[in-house]
Amino acid sequence: MIFASDNWTGASDAVMAALTRHNSGMAPAYGGDPLTESVTKRFSEVFEREVAVFFVTTGTAANSLALSAYAKPGGAIFCHDEAHVLVDECNAPEFFTSGMKLVALKGPEGKFTPASLRTALAALPEGVVHHGRPAAVTITQATEAGTVYGLDEIRAISDVATKRGIALHMDGARFANALVHLDVSPADMTWRAGVDVLSFGATKNGCWCAEAVVFFNKDDAEGFGYLRKRGGQLLSKSRFAAAQFEGYFENGNWLELARHANAMAARLADGIHASESGRLAWVPQANEVFPVFKREKFAELNAAGAIMHEWPAKNLGADETLARMVTSFRTTRDEVEAFLSLL
Amino acid sequence: MIFASDNWTGASDAVMAALTRHNSGMAPAYGGDPLTESVTKRFSEVFEREVAVFFVTTGTAANSLALSAYAKPGGAIFCHDEAHVLVDECNAPEFFTSGMKLVALKGPEGKFTPASLRTALAALPEGVVHHGRPAAVTITQATEAGTVYGLDEIRAISDVATKRGIALHMDGARFANALVHLDVSPADMTWRAGVDVLSFGATKNGCWCAEAVVFFNKDDAEGFGYLRKRGGQLLSKSRFAAAQFEGYFENGNWLELARHANAMAARLADGIHASESGRLAWVPQANEVFPVFKREKFAELNAAGAIMHEWPAKNLGADETLARMVTSFRTTRDEVEAFLSLL
Amino acid sequence: MIFASDNWTGASDAVMAALTRHNSGMAPAYGGDPLTESVTKRFSEVFEREVAVFFVTTGTAANSLALSAYAKPGGAIFCHDEAHVLVDECNAPEFFTSGMKLVALKGPEGKFTPASLRTALAALPEGVVHHGRPAAVTITQATEAGTVYGLDEIRAISDVATKRGIALHMDGARFANALVHLDVSPADMTWRAGVDVLSFGATKNGCWCAEAVVFFNKDDAEGFGYLRKRGGQLLSKSRFAAAQFEGYFENGNWLELARHANAMAARLADGIHASESGRLAWVPQANEVFPVFKREKFAELNAAGAIMHEWPAKNLGADETLARMVTSFRTTRDEVEAFLSLL
Amino acid sequence: MIFASDNWTGASDAVMAALTRHNSGMAPAYGGDPLTESVTKRFSEVFEREVAVFFVTTGTAANSLALSAYAKPGGAIFCHDEAHVLVDECNAPEFFTSGMKLVALKGPEGKFTPASLRTALAALPEGVVHHGRPAAVTITQATEAGTVYGLDEIRAISDVATKRGIALHMDGARFANALVHLDVSPADMTWRAGVDVLSFGATKNGCWCAEAVVFFNKDDAEGFGYLRKRGGQLLSKSRFAAAQFEGYFENGNWLELARHANAMAARLADGIHASESGRLAWVPQANEVFPVFKREKFAELNAAGAIMHEWPAKNLGADETLARMVTSFRTTRDEVEAFLSLL
Repeated sequence: MIFASDNWTGASDAVMAALTRHNSGMAPAYGGDPLTESVTKRFSEVFEREVAVFFVTTGTAANSLALSAYAKPGGAIFCHDEAHVLVDECNAPEFFTSGMKLVALKGPEGKFTPASLRTALAALPEGVVHHGRPAAVTITQATEAGTVYGLDEIRAISDVATKRGIALHMDGARFANALVHLDVSPADMTWRAGVDVLSFGATKNGCWCAEAVVFFNKDDAEGFGYLRKRGGQLLSKSRFAAAQFEGYFENGNWLELARHANAMAARLADGIHASESGRLAWVPQANEVFPVFKREKFAELNAAGAIMHEWPAKNLGADETLARMVTSFRTTRDEVEAFLSLL
Repeated sequence: MIFASDNWTGASDAVMAALTRHNSGMAPAYGGDPLTESVTKRFSEVFEREVAVFFVTTGTAANSLALSAYAKPGGAIFCHDEAHVLVDECNAPEFFTSGMKLVALKGPEGKFTPASLRTALAALPEGVVHHGRPAAVTITQATEAGTVYGLDEIRAISDVATKRGIALHMDGARFANALVHLDVSPADMTWRAGVDVLSFGATKNGCWCAEAVVFFNKDDAEGFGYLRKRGGQLLSKSRFAAAQFEGYFENGNWLELARHANAMAARLADGIHASESGRLAWVPQANEVFPVFKREKFAELNAAGAIMHEWPAKNLGADETLARMVTSFRTTRDEVEAFLSLL
Repeated sequence: MIFASDNWTGASDAVMAALTRHNSGMAPAYGGDPLTESVTKRFSEVFEREVAVFFVTTGTAANSLALSAYAKPGGAIFCHDEAHVLVDECNAPEFFTSGMKLVALKGPEGKFTPASLRTALAALPEGVVHHGRPAAVTITQATEAGTVYGLDEIRAISDVATKRGIALHMDGARFANALVHLDVSPADMTWRAGVDVLSFGATKNGCWCAEAVVFFNKDDAEGFGYLRKRGGQLLSKSRFAAAQFEGYFENGNWLELARHANAMAARLADGIHASESGRLAWVPQANEVFPVFKREKFAELNAAGAIMHEWPAKNLGADETLARMVTSFRTTRDEVEAFLSLL
Repeated sequence: MIFASDNWTGASDAVMAALTRHNSGMAPAYGGDPLTESVTKRFSEVFEREVAVFFVTTGTAANSLALSAYAKPGGAIFCHDEAHVLVDECNAPEFFTSGMKLVALKGPEGKFTPASLRTALAALPEGVVHHGRPAAVTITQATEAGTVYGLDEIRAISDVATKRGIALHMDGARFANALVHLDVSPADMTWRAGVDVLSFGATKNGCWCAEAVVFFNKDDAEGFGYLRKRGGQLLSKSRFAAAQFEGYFENGNWLELARHANAMAARLADGIHASESGRLAWVPQANEVFPVFKREKFAELNAAGAIMHEWPAKNLGADETLARMVTSFRTTRDEVEAFLSLL
C-alpha cells in the first residue's frame, strides 16, 4: 500500500521496451540523432503546433531553466505559495535565474486567482527599480494539492500576464493527470489557453528520467540551447531521453497510465469519504488525495503498512493530521481496496 | 566505421540488464532507496575508502558541481587550456561557481605540468583581492588528448595544490580508460595520488546516463546535497542511476569494456602508424587516437564511411588536418580493420 | 516642507569639513591609507570591541554583501515582509548571494517576533534538501515603519537564530536614529544583543555616500575583502569614505544629528495626534512618522507644498491614505510648524 | 615622488568646489534631482549625441555592469590579456554577468589586434553550444600599458565585433588621458569609432568617486536601471556624483588635468630615456611610464623616496625589473625633476 509518491515507480513497460529497442548501435550525440528528431516532431503533433522541445533530466531543472528563459535582472516570478518551485526546489529557480524573486500568491486548494496576481503585479509598478519588475507567472497543473485549473482559469491568469507583458509557465510535473481529468487536448490546456512554456513531466507517469521544456513560441526558445548546456542538462546520449518519450506517447500509453492513476485516486477518495475514519480535505481531481485523519488513525494506518506522507496543514483539529496519498500507474486496485478496508 | 565519439553508444548489456532487473516495484525516491544505498557502498569498495557519492546526469554537471563545492568569491580554477571544463561546457563551471575564473595552463598532449601550475599560482599572491585567489585545480584523466597522467604526475600536481591549500579535482569522463591503461587501482589513481574529488564518468563507457561526483574527504561533501538539488541534479528515481552503476561495476564489466575500447584504439594507432596515409600526432594511451591526414585523404576516408571529427591543431602542414578518432566498447575489430584497409 | 526622505539631504557640515580637510595630498589607494586605518580603529572604539569594517557606497550593497558572507546554497534569509532587503533592493540580496531566498515574516509596525521566526525555521527541517536551509536572519533598526526593536526583542530574535546556528544581520540604514531613541550604546544595540553583522548606514544621517559593513566576529569577515571587490564596492580612494566617517563620528556629531531628526519627528507626531486632520497609524520612535489622512486632506497638504510619500497600507477607510513623513538633520522646526499649521 | 597610482590623489579643486556648492538644501534622491538631470544632459553635449548615462561608484562596477548589459548565457567577452577586467577585478565581470568567460587576447604594449580577435571569434562558431558564444569585446583606453588605441585601431576592432553582431565596450578608466593624447573629440574616440558602451572614468583624473556607464545606443540601456540597482550601485544621493561630474567638465577642467598628467609622464619618459640608469620598455602615450631598471637601481630609487610599483614583465635581464610610474593631475614638475635627478 504505497501512496508515498508517484516517483516511487520505475518505468512503464512501454518506456522500458522503447529503451531496450533503441539501445543497440550508434547514434550521434547531443541530440543530433534521428530518434531525437522524430520524437521532437512527435511533440509538435501532440501539441498541434510546431514547438521547440528540449529534453532535461529533472523537473527542477525543467522549471528552473524554463523560467530562466524569461529572466530579467530584478525580475519577479509569481507562483502559488505551495508551488514546487517555491518550496521544493532548494532555490534552483532563484539560482538559474541569477537571483529572481519568487512572489507567493495565496489561494485555496493549490490555486491562485487572477485577482491575486493582479494585486501582486500592481505592487511592482513599471519603472520603479527599487521594487523590481514582473518577469513571469507560473502555475502547476495538476496543482500541488491534486486539483486542476480549468481552461477558463488558465486563460484568465494568462490574460493578466499578457496584459503586463510577461510569460506564463506551466509546471506540468503531473501534466497527463490534469489532462485526462479535464478531458481536453494538450493544445487546449497549454497554448490555446495562453501558456507560453511548459515543463512537460513524464518521469512520474512512466519514464525513468525524462522531462521536457516545451516552448510554444519559437522565439522564446532562442538561446535556450545555451541555457540548457550551461545548466548541465544537455544529455550526451539524447536518444536515451527520446526513447523514453517515444514509449511514453506510443498508442496513448501516457494517457492510459494517467487515467489509471486518477481512477485509483478517485476510488481512494470515494472510499475515504464514505468511511468514518477520515474525511477529504478537498475533492481530488488528479492522482493525489488529501485526507484528514485522526493522528491515532494515521499511525494505525502506517503500522498496517500504508505508506503516505503527512502534509503541512492549517485549521485542523489538534488530534488531526493531513495526509497526502499519491497514486500512480503502478497503484493496483487491490492496494486501494486493502487500504480502504483499514478505514 | 564510427569513430566520432564514445557517447554515440547506447548502454552496455550489463547496464541494460540491471535497469530492467530493477524496474519493477516501488522504491523510495530521491536516493532513499536500498539500491542507491547498496551502490553507494559499492563505490566505497571500489575506492577502498569511505567516499561520499552523488549521482548526477551529465559530465558537465558533475564537473561544475564538484568544482562549486570548492567555490570562493574571486576564486580561480586552474586547468589545461584544452580542458573540457574550459572549452566544452558553455561556461557551466563559471555559472555553477557563481563566477569563478578558469585559468588555462598550457602543456603538450593535453597535460600541464606542476611548474606551470606553480607559475600561475604565483600570479595570485595571497591577500591581493584585485587578482582573486586560487580555489581549485582540475585535471582530466584520461586527458582530452587521449593521454594519461601517470601517478607521479598526479601526485606532483597535487603537491603544488596542497601547498597552496586548494583542492584537486579530476574530470574522469574517461576514468576507466585511464585506469586500465595505467593498470592501477581506482584508489591509486585518485585519493592515494592526492585527488580530492572526482567526476566519475560512466556514461561514455557503458551507461545511458550515469555520472557520479565522488568526494574522498567527507567534510568536502558537506552541503553538497544542497548544491546538487539547487543544480537541478537530484534524480527523483535515483535507482535509475544506481541500477546503471550496479551493472557497470558488475563482474568488472566497466574495466573490461574500457580495455576493449583502449585495445581498439591501440590497434587503430598501430595501423595508422604503419600506414603511409597518416601519422600519429602523438601516441594514444586510452581510447582516443589523433592522427594527422592529408586533407584529401581525410575527405576520402569520410566519403568511404569513416565518421570522425576534425580537431583544432597547430603546426600542421597547410594540406593536413588533425582527426580525432574515438573508440568505445562498441567498436568492433572489423570496423577497425575496415578503416585501416582504407589507408 | 520636505518630508520625502532623509536621503534628500546633502552632507552635514562636519562631514563636508572632513572631506575638505583630507582632500589634499596623496594617499595609498584601496584602503591602504592611514586615514582608513584610523577610522577603522574609531569603529572599534565606537563598538567597544575589535570589529572588522568594510566601507561600501550604498545601503543595498552593504546589506547584500553582508548577507552574502553567510550565503549557503539553498539558503534562506528571514526578514520582515516590509524589509528594505525584500521590497526595495531589486533582488540585490538574491543576486549577491547567488540565489538565496528571502522568507518574509509578518508582524505589526515593522517588526517580526521570535515566534514567527521559530515557525518559519521549523518549515525548513535540517537536512531536507528540497526545502533549502536557514542561512541568516535580518532585522532593520530602526524599522521601515519608523519603530525600534528594544534590546530584549533583538536578543530574543538572536536567541532563536543562534539556536539554529544562523547569523543575525542588522540593517542599520537608520542606526543612529534607533540608537538615540533607545539611549543605549552601539555595543548594546548590536553584538551585546547578539547581532553578528551590521550594515552601518551613515548616508541618510549626514554623509554623502558612506556605508560600512561591520562584523563583530572577525572570523565571519574572512574572505569578505574578496566579496566586496567582486561586488564592485572597493573604493580606490578609500579615504573619501574614511573622511566622511571621521566627520560623522566627530564630537558625537552623528548622535546629535539623529537626535534632532527624531525630535522633529516627535514634534510632527504630537502635532498630528493633536490635530483633527490626521491620526497616527502608530507611534513613531525614530525619524519617520506614518500618519493617516483623508485623501482630500493629503492632496491639500501636497498642494500647500508638503512633500511626502504615500505608503502601502491595509485596513484604511476608502477615503484615507497612509503617508510616510521622514525627518532628517536638515529638517527645521519652522518646516515642522509650518506643516502642522496646515492641519 | 609618488608615482604609485593616479588614484592616490584626492579630488580636484573644481570637483571639490562643486561638491561644496551643491551640498546645501534638499534634492530628490536616486537620480530624480535637477542636478543629475542637467549633468546627464552635459554628457550628451560632451559626446555630441543623446546618450544614456548611469553614475556608479567604482571602475570595477562600471565595467562589470556595462558588460552585463550584453550578457548571454554561455557568452564570451574578449579582452587583452592584461586587461583590468581580467586581472584586477576579482572576477567581478564574471560575477555580474552570471558566469560569462573572459577570453584573453595577446598583443604587445597592451593592445590586441583585429586579427587576434577574429581568430578567437572563429573558435566559437555559431550555434555550437558546447563552446559558448561571443557576447562582447572590451578594450581599455588608455590601455593598461599606458598606450592609446588610434581611431583606426578602434574602428578596425569594432568592425570585427559588428560583423559578428557583438558589442564593443571601452574601459575608459583613463579616458581623458587617451583623449588628450589623440587630440580628438569624445565622440570621435567612442561612437564614431564604433564603441557601443563606455566606462567613463573620472575618479583617477579629479573626482573622489565618480564613474559613469555611457550607452551610445539608448536601446542597449533598456533595463540597465535594474542592473545598476540590483548591483548595489544606485546612489541615494545622486547629486553627490552629479556634482563631481559638473566640476569635472567645467571649463574643460578634465582635459586640462589630463594634459598635465600626460605632460608629466612625457617629461618622465624623456628623462629616463636620456638617462643611463633606465630605459623605456615602450613609449608612453598617456600618464603611465614603464621603465626598466636594474633591480639595484630600483631599490635605490625606492630608498630615495620614489614610490612606484614593480610590474609583471617578460624578457627582462635577470637583474632587471619593470616599473610602472603613474602621473596624475597632482604630479608636480618638481617631483618629476627630483626623480630624474636620481637617475
